[in-house]
Amino acid sequence: MMTKGRLEAFTDGVLAIIITIMVLELKVPHGGDFEDLKPLLPIFGSYILSFIYIAIYWNNHHHMMQTVKHVTGSILWANMHLLFWLSLIPFVSGWMGENHFTTAGVFLYGIVLLGAAIAYFVLQYLIIKSHGKDFILSKALGKDLKGKASPVLYIIGIISAFFNIWISGFMFVFVAVMWLIPDNRIEKALNKDSNL
Amino acid sequence: MMTKGRLEAFTDGVLAIIITIMVLELKVPHGGDFEDLKPLLPIFGSYILSFIYIAIYWNNHHHMMQTVKHVTGSILWANMHLLFWLSLIPFVSGWMGENHFTTAGVFLYGIVLLGAAIAYFVLQYLIIKSHGKDFILSKALGKDLKGKASPVLYIIGIISAFFNIWISGFMFVFVAVMWLIPDNRIEKALNKDSNL
Amino acid sequence: MMTKGRLEAFTDGVLAIIITIMVLELKVPHGGDFEDLKPLLPIFGSYILSFIYIAIYWNNHHHMMQTVKHVTGSILWANMHLLFWLSLIPFVSGWMGENHFTTAGVFLYGIVLLGAAIAYFVLQYLIIKSHGKDFILSKALGKDLKGKASPVLYIIGIISAFFNIWISGFMFVFVAVMWLIPDNRIEKALNKDSNL
Amino acid sequence: MMTKGRLEAFTDGVLAIIITIMVLELKVPHGGDFEDLKPLLPIFGSYILSFIYIAIYWNNHHHMMQTVKHVTGSILWANMHLLFWLSLIPFVSGWMGENHFTTAGVFLYGIVLLGAAIAYFVLQYLIIKSHGKDFILSKALGKDLKGKASPVLYIIGIISAFFNIWISGFMFVFVAVMWLIPDNRIEKALNKDSNL
Repeated sequence: MMTKGRLEAFTDGVLAIIITIMVLELKVPHGGDFEDLKPLLPIFGSYILSFIYIAIYWNNHHHMMQTVKHVTGSILWANMHLLFWLSLIPFVSGWMGENHFTTAGVFLYGIVLLGAAIAYFVLQYLIIKSHGKDFILSKALGKDLKGKASPVLYIIGIISAFFNIWISGFMFVFVAVMWLIPDNRIEKALNKDSNL
Repeated sequence: MMTKGRLEAFTDGVLAIIITIMVLELKVPHGGDFEDLKPLLPIFGSYILSFIYIAIYWNNHHHMMQTVKHVTGSILWANMHLLFWLSLIPFVSGWMGENHFTTAGVFLYGIVLLGAAIAYFVLQYLIIKSHGKDFILSKALGKDLKGKASPVLYIIGIISAFFNIWISGFMFVFVAVMWLIPDNRIEKALNKDSNL
Repeated sequence: MMTKGRLEAFTDGVLAIIITIMVLELKVPHGGDFEDLKPLLPIFGSYILSFIYIAIYWNNHHHMMQTVKHVTGSILWANMHLLFWLSLIPFVSGWMGENHFTTAGVFLYGIVLLGAAIAYFVLQYLIIKSHGKDFILSKALGKDLKGKASPVLYIIGIISAFFNIWISGFMFVFVAVMWLIPDNRIEKALNKDSNL
Repeated sequence: MMTKGRLEAFTDGVLAIIITIMVLELKVPHGGDFEDLKPLLPIFGSYILSFIYIAIYWNNHHHMMQTVKHVTGSILWANMHLLFWLSLIPFVSGWMGENHFTTAGVFLYGIVLLGAAIAYFVLQYLIIKSHGKDFILSKALGKDLKGKASPVLYIIGIISAFFNIWISGFMFVFVAVMWLIPDNRIEKALNKDSNL
């Protein structure tokens, strides 16, 4: 039996650090006028998008963990695997922004988003598998449309990077917006369940 | 139902990191004499002010969360929105200090303070709205003079940046001092309330 | 009596920061093409290995602390000693990667791994000593083959650095893989023990 | 009433970050040979000393907080004041090390140690004042010889910086060693006290 508390605390710590050190990519410019900020605008745009993605992952992770009753060794490693992909976001976010959204930058950003999505999916799968068939999370997820659509949209975004980075950008923003829209599946299921 | 504990832990983590990485803007000078520290003085002044602001936000956030009984999805996102503005403080603080308080630097610092204040206000509003009418926080805040005066003073400071940055500086320091003065509204209300 | 909770929280915090700031060694390249990432590949390989090591330490630490019933002053300092060695991993990892696995780089990386392993061993020893003879951890560890093999393999890797860094690399990867393979000794022992 | 838990969590977070980001002052050298590490040796020495100081503060803070039964607004700000001084340690530590222990570097390091000691003293005083006269901490501290000797030794170290930095270095190391020696005053007092 492993306490899920410490898993949550560690994940919170890592996500809090990722979301905060990203801002270090916004290097303080040496000039002090408004135009000196101009070169930072793409990095800043990239920062906002990445901030939202980390916030979404924290949010979804938090909801998912609420339903968890026990943590196995493989769940723990699946969680580490997720944190690995998320830890690369400050780097790919900075690179994409600093080079004004080149094909390679946008491509790599998409790859990291896709890697994180797959890692999250694996984590979710292992949690469901390790709990009984009446497990609240499986009921709450239902068909899990968002979870299934995201990787597809990321892949479209990744391939588009070689033709038109605007399509890629649209895909990555679209997925973020899709997850930002309130989604009370787990909250509702938890409220129904009297055991919690 | 969401546990407010994890929201607090995540917020604590982000604020702890913000308050600490700000010191990384104090780049270690290559010379080892006292005069080599001189160029760092404005950055240091800027650091002290920003440190106090983050401490105030932590303090107020902590008090506010003590009264909260449940956390909704929108409260969570309002909290993330607040953290976004606060995460920009190390950058604007470093930029303002390194360029010796130019108009643009002081202006942007004020904009970020204003953004954080508005985000805090929205968070507070959503918390009050989601709780009943006898909610302890609404009683504790009363007319919330400080909360209402701060954005006005920030706006005066932001506009003054184009004419006289000393006025701006005075405004930003004044708001910080105003919040530093002990304010026991919530503590008193909590003590009165026998349910806590 | 010292609460082990705060020891765990502090350790989690430090490990979360170590695992995350390592990514800062991946300096964003100025060019925006795929070939601009090439020089980063060895640093990235080094990053992955170090990430896995920190994850293993977190995992093992977590399991060990579950069995702990009280924390003495010397346990606390042994823990700090472990954190000291682990805090050097981002530095040696970055150095080893950036200089493409020179003898000195690989040697120093091995020294830090060895230092951490010894520190962990000391911590484990102090915990066992401070608990009774029926202490669950001593039973769970049994002969502790992995714990005893690791320092030996590190030393082989450290010495090999002067002849053939591929042997060193193999040793360091091998130890990581050895620990990644599920190992349920403590979990099993905890489940047997009805007191927990 | 304020929960001391969140004060501890925030302090843990800040100390964990301080102790970890200090290692970022150890800039990865571009050469990959052993001699390329040589210029880093003074920074590394400085890092070890600072690591021990932060560990001591964490340790003492942890013990002190165990005795605390309630946290007032002024205790909270005294704690922030302590964190402010400690947050400067990575900077002064890096500066002192990088410039090979110049007078100014050693002087400033001493000033920050002194500032932190005074801040700790104020925090301790406010905690004792806010609790009753039978408060366990006052009994545990007794004459508090270490607490009183430290600032005196720091001041000697600070003044010596102008004549002989070896005396300063000795003082700063001596105080660290003095605190490292086990000191069970609070632990003993807590064990005696049946209320805990």
